[in-house]
Amino acid sequence: MVKMGPFIAVDWGTTNRRAFRIEDGNVVATERDDRGAANVAAGDYEAEVAGIRNRLGDLPMLLAGMVGSNIGWRSVPYVAAPAGLTDVAAALERIDDRTAIVPGLSYRDGLHADVMRGEEVQLLGAVVAGLVPSDATLCQPGTHCKWATLQAGAILSFTTAMTGELFALLRAHGVLSRQLGHPVEPGAAFLEGVAEGAKRDLAASLFAIRARGVLGIADDVHAASFASGLLIGADTAARIMPGEAVHVLADPALGALYASAIDALGGTSHHIDSQAAFMAGITRIQELAA
Amino acid sequence: MVKMGPFIAVDWGTTNRRAFRIEDGNVVATERDDRGAANVAAGDYEAEVAGIRNRLGDLPMLLAGMVGSNIGWRSVPYVAAPAGLTDVAAALERIDDRTAIVPGLSYRDGLHADVMRGEEVQLLGAVVAGLVPSDATLCQPGTHCKWATLQAGAILSFTTAMTGELFALLRAHGVLSRQLGHPVEPGAAFLEGVAEGAKRDLAASLFAIRARGVLGIADDVHAASFASGLLIGADTAARIMPGEAVHVLADPALGALYASAIDALGGTSHHIDSQAAFMAGITRIQELAA
Repeated sequence: MVKMGPFIAVDWGTTNRRAFRIEDGNVVATERDDRGAANVAAGDYEAEVAGIRNRLGDLPMLLAGMVGSNIGWRSVPYVAAPAGLTDVAAALERIDDRTAIVPGLSYRDGLHADVMRGEEVQLLGAVVAGLVPSDATLCQPGTHCKWATLQAGAILSFTTAMTGELFALLRAHGVLSRQLGHPVEPGAAFLEGVAEGAKRDLAASLFAIRARGVLGIADDVHAASFASGLLIGADTAARIMPGEAVHVLADPALGALYASAIDALGGTSHHIDSQAAFMAGITRIQELAA
Repeated sequence: MVKMGPFIAVDWGTTNRRAFRIEDGNVVATERDDRGAANVAAGDYEAEVAGIRNRLGDLPMLLAGMVGSNIGWRSVPYVAAPAGLTDVAAALERIDDRTAIVPGLSYRDGLHADVMRGEEVQLLGAVVAGLVPSDATLCQPGTHCKWATLQAGAILSFTTAMTGELFALLRAHGVLSRQLGHPVEPGAAFLEGVAEGAKRDLAASLFAIRARGVLGIADDVHAASFASGLLIGADTAARIMPGEAVHVLADPALGALYASAIDALGGTSHHIDSQAAFMAGITRIQELAA
C-alpha cells in the first residue's frame, strides 16, 4: 500500500456538511455544520474550501456527496454501476492538483433508473473496513433510503426508495397529517404497520390509517408508528428475500426501525458503523488516487 | 313500487355540493356550488337546507356524503359492509320528519379498515340503474379512489386508495415537485408509468422519476404523466385480476386514465354514467324510506 500523507475528507450533503482531517487512516480533527450544498452559492465553493483548510490544515482534499451535483460546486458525471472504489477513484473530478470531487453512481435496469451521490463511499467503504462481506446486501436508511447489492466488493446494483420523504410529506400535509404528529417508536404499532406494508399496497394501506382512526380501531397516538412501519415495511418487503442478511448503515434510532422491519419480514439485520465505513472508503479512494 | 312524490337529493361532499330536485325519477332542477362540508360551519346547516328548499322547492330532502361526517351537520354511524340499499335506507339519520342523512359504509378485514361517505349511493345506484351487473367490480377514481366488490347488488367489500392525494402531495411538495408541473396525458409515458407501477414498489419507482430526469433518460415534460401512471398502475395492479371487468364511475378525463391502466393490466374497463347512478341510488333510498 502506498504510504499516504494526511488529507481532508468532506461528506458534503444537501443540508449538512462534515469534514475530517485524516492521518494514517485515523480521524484527528473533525467539524460539522449546516453549510450543505443547498446552503452554499455556486460561486462560494472556493472560499468554503479555503475556510476548511484554514481550520483543519492546508492539505489535499476529497469532497463527496451533493457537492458534485447540479446544486453543488460542479456537476460531476455519474459512474455507471456495477462499480467499485477503483472505478470511483479513476473518475475523480479534479478541481486543482490537490482538490477533487468523488463522482456518484448511476444504475439502470429497464424502466428503472437510479442515482446516488456520497452514499457510495460508505457502502463500498464498509467492505474495505471489513464490516461487511464482499458479497452482501446493504441498506442505508434516510430521506431517500439506499439499498445496494455488493458483489466482489463492488456495487452491482442499487435501488433508492423515497420512504423517508413520503413519511415527511404525509406528516406535514394532507388528510393524515393531523393523525401523524406523535413520535415514531418501535413496538407493536410499528410492527402492525410492517405487516400491513408487506402487502405492498401503499395507497390503500395509508388510507386505512384514517379509517382506523375514524372507526376507533386504533388510537391516533400510535398512528405515526403504524405509518412508519407501513412505509418501511413496504420498502423492505420489496427488497429482501427470506433468510437474507442485510447490513444497515444508519443512526441508531432509524437503524433500529429498519432492523426491526428486516427481522420481522424474515431477514437478518446487522448494524454497521457508518462513520467507520465512510472513513475506510474515502481513505481507499485517496490511496488509489495517489 | 310505492308511488313517490318529488324530493330533493343533495350530494354533499367535502368541497362541493350538488342538489337535485327529482320528480318521477327525473332531475327537473339542479344547482352546484362550493358550499361543501369543509366550507359550512356546524351551526349553519339548518339555514343552508332552508336556502336549498327556497331555491328548489319546499320538499323532503335526502342528504348524502360528508354532511354526515364529523366535519358535517351530524356524525352519522357507518353501516358495516356487506350492505345494500335496504341497509342504508334502514339506517337513515332523521333530522326531522322530512330531512334525513344517508349513512356511509365501513369495512374491516383484519388489519385493514375502510370507510366511505356518499360514494355508496353511486356504487349501489349503478346496479339499480341497470348500468352494471349485480355481481361486479366498480372503481370510482378521485382524491381517494374507491374500489368496491358488489355481490347480489350489495357492497360486499371495498378498498380506498389515496392515489389522487399522493399525486397532489408529490406535485406540490418535495423533491419531485419541480418535475411534475406539466399536465397529465394518456399515452406512452402514462403507460410506461403503469407498467412500472405494476411492480407495486411505489417509494422506489417514484424516486426513479428523479433519476430518469437527472440522467436524461426521460424529458420532464412527460414526468407528470409517468407519475400518474405509476400511482394509478400500482393502485390498479393491487386490485384487479386478469380478465376482470371493471366499471369506472368518473369524469371523462380521470376515467380515461383509469380505463387505460385497467386495460393495460389485463382487465376490461367500462365507463359508467356516475350521475345516472347517483340518481337511481338516491331515488331507491327515498322509495325504501317512504
